Amino acid sequence: MIIGGGFGGLRAARELGRADVRVTVVDRRNHHLFQPLLYQVATAGLSGPDIAAPIRQVLRRQKNTTVLLAEVRSIDVEGRRLVLDEGELAYDALIVAAGAGNFYFGNESWAEHAPGLKSIEDALTIRRRVLCAFESAERESDPERRRSHLTFVVVGGGPTGVELAGALAEIGKHTLARDFRNFDPADARVVLVEGSDRLLGGMAVKLSDAARMQLEARGVEVVLGARVETIDERGAVVGGQRIVADTVLWAAGVRASPLAEELGVPLDRGRVLVEPDLSVPGHPEIYVVGDMSGLKQDGEWLPGVAQVAIQGGARAARNILLRQAGRATEPFRYSDKGTMATIGRSAAVAEIGGVKSAGFFAWVVWWLVHVIALIGFRNRVMVMLEWFWAYISWQRTARVIVDRPMRELAEGKPASVERTDSAGSSGPTS
Amino acid sequence: MIIGGGFGGLRAARELGRADVRVTVVDRRNHHLFQPLLYQVATAGLSGPDIAAPIRQVLRRQKNTTVLLAEVRSIDVEGRRLVLDEGELAYDALIVAAGAGNFYFGNESWAEHAPGLKSIEDALTIRRRVLCAFESAERESDPERRRSHLTFVVVGGGPTGVELAGALAEIGKHTLARDFRNFDPADARVVLVEGSDRLLGGMAVKLSDAARMQLEARGVEVVLGARVETIDERGAVVGGQRIVADTVLWAAGVRASPLAEELGVPLDRGRVLVEPDLSVPGHPEIYVVGDMSGLKQDGEWLPGVAQVAIQGGARAARNILLRQAGRATEPFRYSDKGTMATIGRSAAVAEIGGVKSAGFFAWVVWWLVHVIALIGFRNRVMVMLEWFWAYISWQRTARVIVDRPMRELAEGKPASVERTDSAGSSGPTS
Repeated sequence: MIIGGGFGGLRAARELGRADVRVTVVDRRNHHLFQPLLYQVATAGLSGPDIAAPIRQVLRRQKNTTVLLAEVRSIDVEGRRLVLDEGELAYDALIVAAGAGNFYFGNESWAEHAPGLKSIEDALTIRRRVLCAFESAERESDPERRRSHLTFVVVGGGPTGVELAGALAEIGKHTLARDFRNFDPADARVVLVEGSDRLLGGMAVKLSDAARMQLEARGVEVVLGARVETIDERGAVVGGQRIVADTVLWAAGVRASPLAEELGVPLDRGRVLVEPDLSVPGHPEIYVVGDMSGLKQDGEWLPGVAQVAIQGGARAARNILLRQAGRATEPFRYSDKGTMATIGRSAAVAEIGGVKSAGFFAWVVWWLVHVIALIGFRNRVMVMLEWFWAYISWQRTARVIVDRPMRELAEGKPASVERTDSAGSSGPTS
Repeated sequence: MIIGGGFGGLRAARELGRADVRVTVVDRRNHHLFQPLLYQVATAGLSGPDIAAPIRQVLRRQKNTTVLLAEVRSIDVEGRRLVLDEGELAYDALIVAAGAGNFYFGNESWAEHAPGLKSIEDALTIRRRVLCAFESAERESDPERRRSHLTFVVVGGGPTGVELAGALAEIGKHTLARDFRNFDPADARVVLVEGSDRLLGGMAVKLSDAARMQLEARGVEVVLGARVETIDERGAVVGGQRIVADTVLWAAGVRASPLAEELGVPLDRGRVLVEPDLSVPGHPEIYVVGDMSGLKQDGEWLPGVAQVAIQGGARAARNILLRQAGRATEPFRYSDKGTMATIGRSAAVAEIGGVKSAGFFAWVVWWLVHVIALIGFRNRVMVMLEWFWAYISWQRTARVIVDRPMRELAEGKPASVERTDSAGSSGPTS
């Protein structure tokens, strides 16, 4: 039984595909999501289905595998049963790979004002807010309110925050350059806030500096070593200063799925403290992989990245087979294949096997790695073509506001649009 | 001032793009929608952004044109002003092209159970229901309930109904063929219900028959001359007989936007009875085009199709310029470029300039016309590639359930999934 069709769960299911076992993958979504590109959906560069593949379709050739769209309510560890939203499922061995959700460090009321980026729904929410902010600016005559519409604060300087900030800067400077009449989209202000003293804390200091410079060259204001004190409907208070902004995006924290609490073992910041072989202490039939799993290697916590989940999923699956064969399980050993983050068009930073690179070459590597990694041939070709087109045209192809644009606008401050009928024949009028 | 960025409004805006006038396009959506392909989004063949283009982007080169995302609340015909959700807009000349919405002939309570297909939101709702119906069938052990999950009723035998029914049949027979373990998706039942005695009433009888035969060859049950008496959560009652079905789709009726009532002139089934030059009686400064406009040509009402809207939009725009120049307006004359409908893979019917065709050739023509007509180069290439890929792989690329899959499933009948953990290693078990 595998809970979760993300990187870890899917890899485990594939590993078990030819073994003499019956496999059931339970997920509350019907699709596997390629999360590293979710920021592209949020910034209208890709559409949701481009980075999502139905779990069922990915695994359809595995005759021993059943995929079930269902929500796991609780885990009966002693009775070896999952309680679902409807019915129950018994298991002999269990892999828990339910991932992580957004976490606001105890300020969960911020969630409403600063959406995070973990699901397609999150990405579409962010896309709607960003596009509607520009639409509100076009309807606005008061310069101060317009500045609020055009200010975007991204909280968190990890890869997601860096990628979001870079993409937002490009949207204003290029994508929307000629689309509005009452303001210049290039005036959009993007602020990236990071609590520590550098961006991309997991990478070399040299690359942190390169990322900051590349972002600043694109007009992003990078604020380091500043704590976010408040996020509300008027914007954010950062290091004692209020930034008035309609749009605040959250990329600062995630936390393991609450399913971890069902296992009845000690947690560290929500993560299950697993044995070296990824099993749960006292329950060798249960494994926890990916973002839910807390394990140190060479004195450092393993990071919450796709590669750790993929390799962990494979290890857990092999350990189940070893145990079934009456043999000893093996400890998990993560092999770091490198980390990278893109800043925008022709700019990225990458650290692969000791080689550190920043700029165009890193960007090409980033691009190739992500296109190749995308699950399913179709997605790969489509994403490549969308990006190629975006690259030569500066356009973003998914600029569609789905769902309640009017309500989104109404949430902004009241605005007069009377100036529109007296607008001049070209360019801004106020 | 143009209300609506659909086929009629956009064509009118383009016609006025080089004239010495100021143009404002008001729409409550940010995108122009290529409605003839909406059924592809509903059946997971395309993603929403593939058939939508931001109105702003389409018109960005027209320096005299402002695009405003806003909802028109009412029209002050005497004061020549639009009242928006926020603020007002004055106009000298007005083109009303707000299109039509779903209409249930007075049974508006059916809307909840039988979604129509007019917007991207509608299409995503239908996609979610269809995909979730198959998921529910996989979770279901009771054969009768499973049959209900796998029964799809399409009401209305016009082009939209025919295209939806054809696509649904293919999803069961091919797309999902190997994806489920507890039932065979080919058992899905698709029923197309039409009140008159033939499909595609606007086309030649010969083609109506061809369409019916092509659908039946794909396993669709075509029910002609039968009235729908009830639609509820258990399915539909058609000609005195209940069809138990989780999914009922509505393609039987549309009605002009309620904005028509704002003009204070006689309506025919919601449509504004316009003068031959498309202006509103008594108000030569207001024109109504597309689905909102009621006009007879050679004794027949003009149909609610894209070509009528496009040609009408151009005529209204030219009449505004003629009137501005102090000259007489010209009557609208619709030139029928042909009609067509696709039934599925390699099958369509088409009637172009007296030539009637059914089968593969018609399908190729349908395909070319739609790809070429898609607004925006990117969409054209993308859609072509998605279809090419779908054609060689039998796959649909947008099988993603966004938003509340669990709630959708919960709306079905309670089901036990206990049989899953005892499922055999291949094929259905019950």
